[in-house]
Amino acid sequence: MEGDMAKDAADKPVVGTDLGGTKILAGVVNESGKIVGMAKRATRAHEGVEQVVARIAKTILEAVSDAKLDRSDIAAACVVAPGPSNPDHGIVWSAPNLPGWEEVHLPDLLKARLDMPVFLENDVNLGTFGEFVLGAGKGYRDLVGIFVGTGIGGGLVLDGRLRQGFRYSAAEIGHMVILADGPVCGCGKRGCAEALASRTAIERDIWAGIRAGRESLIPEIMKREKREQIPSGALAEAYRGGDPLVTEVLARAQFYLGILVATCVNLIDPEAVILGGGVVEALGEEFLEPVRRVAYQYFMNKRDAKSVQIVRARLGDNAALLGAAMFARQKVSSK
Amino acid sequence: MEGDMAKDAADKPVVGTDLGGTKILAGVVNESGKIVGMAKRATRAHEGVEQVVARIAKTILEAVSDAKLDRSDIAAACVVAPGPSNPDHGIVWSAPNLPGWEEVHLPDLLKARLDMPVFLENDVNLGTFGEFVLGAGKGYRDLVGIFVGTGIGGGLVLDGRLRQGFRYSAAEIGHMVILADGPVCGCGKRGCAEALASRTAIERDIWAGIRAGRESLIPEIMKREKREQIPSGALAEAYRGGDPLVTEVLARAQFYLGILVATCVNLIDPEAVILGGGVVEALGEEFLEPVRRVAYQYFMNKRDAKSVQIVRARLGDNAALLGAAMFARQKVSSK
Repeated sequence: MEGDMAKDAADKPVVGTDLGGTKILAGVVNESGKIVGMAKRATRAHEGVEQVVARIAKTILEAVSDAKLDRSDIAAACVVAPGPSNPDHGIVWSAPNLPGWEEVHLPDLLKARLDMPVFLENDVNLGTFGEFVLGAGKGYRDLVGIFVGTGIGGGLVLDGRLRQGFRYSAAEIGHMVILADGPVCGCGKRGCAEALASRTAIERDIWAGIRAGRESLIPEIMKREKREQIPSGALAEAYRGGDPLVTEVLARAQFYLGILVATCVNLIDPEAVILGGGVVEALGEEFLEPVRRVAYQYFMNKRDAKSVQIVRARLGDNAALLGAAMFARQKVSSK
Repeated sequence: MEGDMAKDAADKPVVGTDLGGTKILAGVVNESGKIVGMAKRATRAHEGVEQVVARIAKTILEAVSDAKLDRSDIAAACVVAPGPSNPDHGIVWSAPNLPGWEEVHLPDLLKARLDMPVFLENDVNLGTFGEFVLGAGKGYRDLVGIFVGTGIGGGLVLDGRLRQGFRYSAAEIGHMVILADGPVCGCGKRGCAEALASRTAIERDIWAGIRAGRESLIPEIMKREKREQIPSGALAEAYRGGDPLVTEVLARAQFYLGILVATCVNLIDPEAVILGGGVVEALGEEFLEPVRRVAYQYFMNKRDAKSVQIVRARLGDNAALLGAAMFARQKVSSK
């Protein structure tokens, strides 16, 4: 009986929802993993928790309508947590971009309005899970996901299941220390991967080089920008233009990313490692090759080193939304 | 039916076997985790694989007799692998202390002689699993085991199961890089935890200090020893005697061990971390306290940092043997 219900749930569409500081996005995903309905609304966070919750519910129902479905056709929904949370207890502790959000029982509030199971998880975990089910990780048994952008985030899928961790804080990959006496990280410690290989770290080293008189294409490219933040696209433009400073700084980031990949693999021994995020997306395959080389060199298991798949993420901006939908499906299917 | 068989297996005694270069040890463990029979024989590795395998089988049967049991009373056995192996395929690839051992299908060879299921796993994985079921890790859901001796080894238990890894090479904890530009490790890379906090690394730094003219109790204590290797006991003696050089070198090792613990926790988020091995056993609780302090400081999850249990291993030399027995039990119980 339970087996039958689980089978039913696996065949029914699910909803993934992304809750940001400016917009709410909902997508209905069918049994083949295709988005068949979408809806978007402004968050208007200043109106307070109750109003935003009501708007999330509306957005979800609009996506269901857009898919020409009824809410009774939907097996479950999952919201990408807008900040630190306890997924099993369904609590959002806080949300940096949503003023007033403190200890909000978001899934319960939505369940009351939608009459369907609602789940919660963080964005990089869901992004990794999305890649696992529908993207670059399809068909692998285990996965470490590493996303390089403003910071470095990650996720773990072990034996087909998201590793959330005993305190729901697994996969803080950006804060694994790989150079204990290295530069200070945003978290206050020294030598975290994020302080060595994130876009922020790369940008810091490029500006330091320019201030020290090194030549670079970056000042010219950056005339368009109104701030010191170097977008991944500008990095890619300078890199492809053969900028020696940018190439040198990126080589350092690639070295540390390779060590980070190897350190994760030496601990977890997953089937594959997926690299994604703004920096990896903008710089592409030629950025990844040196990362792979360093990683293979640092793996302890020499016998099977090359069998560790190190691949680029495929789902881009949709990863967390698709991951949320797939996570909701796994949750109701495995009950 | 299968459920009944599994229940039977969980109630029957199991055998753990340790195969070393000089001796073979077998222990029968009853349903309450107590050793109820033991046997020991010389390995005599020079006589070749066949002879050693026959001797392992004999030792196991002697342990069974010592427990006043019959081989039909035994649910299964597990051998601690004497070198790199593939546990699921039951292959020992090689064994540094057993000449001639190359691609030996040890479990199959033993099964043929013993007529019971026989399993294989490596020593630190089994030591961690032993601590999980019967030692310091009893009652926890997840565990990272870190063993500090001549090298640094480790094991992972996640959601109650040993994480063996996709290539059976998970938990190479000694080769996680935490100081990328640090000293060269035995593995050839720089900055592995093992090159910073193992007994070998501690010993290297102490001799370097002494050569540089620093005062220390070590030369006096070491007059008894015939080699440069500083045993953990000698370290403990100097540490308790207030040796300033040894205290300083150990403080550095404690700092790096704290970072190693935090880096594992930031990736895995286990319920507990168990620290064991010769160095930790000899130096005891006062060695562990600074390790804990650094680890708590480096955890990313500040909300629940103190809930990470960092405890000392309890099973000592018996950990791998007991772990082997418990691993055999879990294997036949979960079939």
